[in-house]
Amino acid sequence: MPTGIVLEDRVTLAHGAGGKETEDLVRKLFSELLPRSLWSLRGGVGLEAMDDAASIPLPGGRHLVVTADSYTVKPLWFPGGDLGRLAASGTINDVLMMGGRPLAMLDAIVVEEGFPLKDLWSIVGSMTEILGEEGVALIGGDFKVMPHGDLDSILVATMGIGVAEKPIVDSNLRPGDKVIVSGNIGEHGAVIMALQQGLSISSGELRSDASPLTRLMLPLLERYGDSIHAARDPTRGGLAMTLNDWAQISNTTIYVWENAVPIREPVRVYSEMLGIDPFTLASEGVAVLGVDPSVAEEMVEYMRELGFRDAGIIGEVRLNRGLEGLVVLETVSGGRRILDQPRGELVPRIC
Amino acid sequence: MPTGIVLEDRVTLAHGAGGKETEDLVRKLFSELLPRSLWSLRGGVGLEAMDDAASIPLPGGRHLVVTADSYTVKPLWFPGGDLGRLAASGTINDVLMMGGRPLAMLDAIVVEEGFPLKDLWSIVGSMTEILGEEGVALIGGDFKVMPHGDLDSILVATMGIGVAEKPIVDSNLRPGDKVIVSGNIGEHGAVIMALQQGLSISSGELRSDASPLTRLMLPLLERYGDSIHAARDPTRGGLAMTLNDWAQISNTTIYVWENAVPIREPVRVYSEMLGIDPFTLASEGVAVLGVDPSVAEEMVEYMRELGFRDAGIIGEVRLNRGLEGLVVLETVSGGRRILDQPRGELVPRIC
Repeated sequence: MPTGIVLEDRVTLAHGAGGKETEDLVRKLFSELLPRSLWSLRGGVGLEAMDDAASIPLPGGRHLVVTADSYTVKPLWFPGGDLGRLAASGTINDVLMMGGRPLAMLDAIVVEEGFPLKDLWSIVGSMTEILGEEGVALIGGDFKVMPHGDLDSILVATMGIGVAEKPIVDSNLRPGDKVIVSGNIGEHGAVIMALQQGLSISSGELRSDASPLTRLMLPLLERYGDSIHAARDPTRGGLAMTLNDWAQISNTTIYVWENAVPIREPVRVYSEMLGIDPFTLASEGVAVLGVDPSVAEEMVEYMRELGFRDAGIIGEVRLNRGLEGLVVLETVSGGRRILDQPRGELVPRIC
Repeated sequence: MPTGIVLEDRVTLAHGAGGKETEDLVRKLFSELLPRSLWSLRGGVGLEAMDDAASIPLPGGRHLVVTADSYTVKPLWFPGGDLGRLAASGTINDVLMMGGRPLAMLDAIVVEEGFPLKDLWSIVGSMTEILGEEGVALIGGDFKVMPHGDLDSILVATMGIGVAEKPIVDSNLRPGDKVIVSGNIGEHGAVIMALQQGLSISSGELRSDASPLTRLMLPLLERYGDSIHAARDPTRGGLAMTLNDWAQISNTTIYVWENAVPIREPVRVYSEMLGIDPFTLASEGVAVLGVDPSVAEEMVEYMRELGFRDAGIIGEVRLNRGLEGLVVLETVSGGRRILDQPRGELVPRIC
């Protein structure tokens, strides 16, 4: 339940960090201001799901999947990508994570007066490059300029549109399911945080993973569609946020085996230097899946064949009375601890 | 054709004002960076239309209408509304202007650190109030916070979704069509500009018209659907921008009778004080329609019955060799002048 939000307060960075405070604020805001009847369209997925995207039933039984996001990363360019690559990839991934095949995008670009046109070209060029590779159309948008001083550099809001045979809604996660990640976690978060903190990065050590997950998700959906009960890209708040969301929304307990979670050594080292848990660091090219146990091993094999060589089973979903809604980490040292929902400021302007 | 855009330059307020410079910049940006095959989905309306919205064909022949916008008005509260009312109304109107029945919205809200929560509640409350009145669902969204100094106050990006029997695409305007406006123009632009310039406004004299046009457009679409060839709400750049867009995209000449255009006296007076042509001032609750001449008079009567008492025919579309793509104003004094596409800075952060 949302607690501790008093209207006399002001918005903090924590409210926007994608962790517990964001969830509490958004839930309070809309539960107070928007009648429940307007949280979704009949038969579709809406606000109540607190998912990556929403859905609208189409004639014939399929669903339109739609998603809205804003992107405001700082710095605008980073090893592995830039704001444009991030916006296109993130939008495409949100559609995929609800089981949709991405078809089209719209954008609303807001730029600060004085922003160099060549930088605008560079960022929009990265965005359209991804769209071109993915065959996703950019069918409309909006362009505005804010006076100098009213906005720092550039902000890109996007709307993603796709079509799903059946939307994947994470509340569908069930006891017995295995939890799979498609690759090393925390890559995007580590590089952005290191840059924001002014750490010098040895060449190639840290690199954002910002990428569309189409070549993973479309084959998986085709072969294992009904066995994928939950899917999310662990962006703000990282793996810790995704799994806590899932445990809460499905009222289960998620057990994670720490030594099974793929984290590259440099990400581990920088996380330690930065004093942050890599489980809370954002990924922008990783899928977390909750899948039927009967196909989990086979699915991981297939993911590796598809080029996702670090894919692996990292945990499972259980019914454990008294621990509903929690994530339990079985640590490398053999102990157990609760993996909390991330709180506090985390990393501002990370995506 | 886009001219005078050099990549060594920087973004100016004019680039974002919604006039000629915006159109030139956006056209150049996407024609250079996005292959034509990705400007629309097969059978749908896309970027090439430079319209208020885009469309996606649905199974069964209808079209999904989608729109993306960002709202960043300053001041946040003004006579007649606030940012939230503006965002909801503008989104709904963009769907309506493509002939769609508005069904759902998504939002991406970005707030400055330190923004008062009660102000967030007030603005989101205005937005949801409109959605409630209109029965439009808010099915998803995103919430981010930018550090203090990186954003002035709050920005709301929205995605609107609706369904159209047949999308209204403004290039369908044809010679002989009559041009109708649904009410007094320039109301929103006048009040925002007066406030930004620090003019004191006598109580009630100026007032934004920000409102959804559902109770106008749905009855009109039902009764006169096929006779409405073009529809637009004249926001940034005002009536002058809308009519110039239409003349260019349909390769016609639009004649406007100045004395037929409804402008309230206080708007006229403030425009004069501010040194701006009221034809370039934004409206946020007015529809401009291009309609078959056989139904124009009758349609105006019906609009008045629906409560739009100032509706009227203000001009007509002609084929006039040598004047293609231009708007000709027949002035009150009996003269004729070209009504140019607005240029320059116009009003920043007007919507």
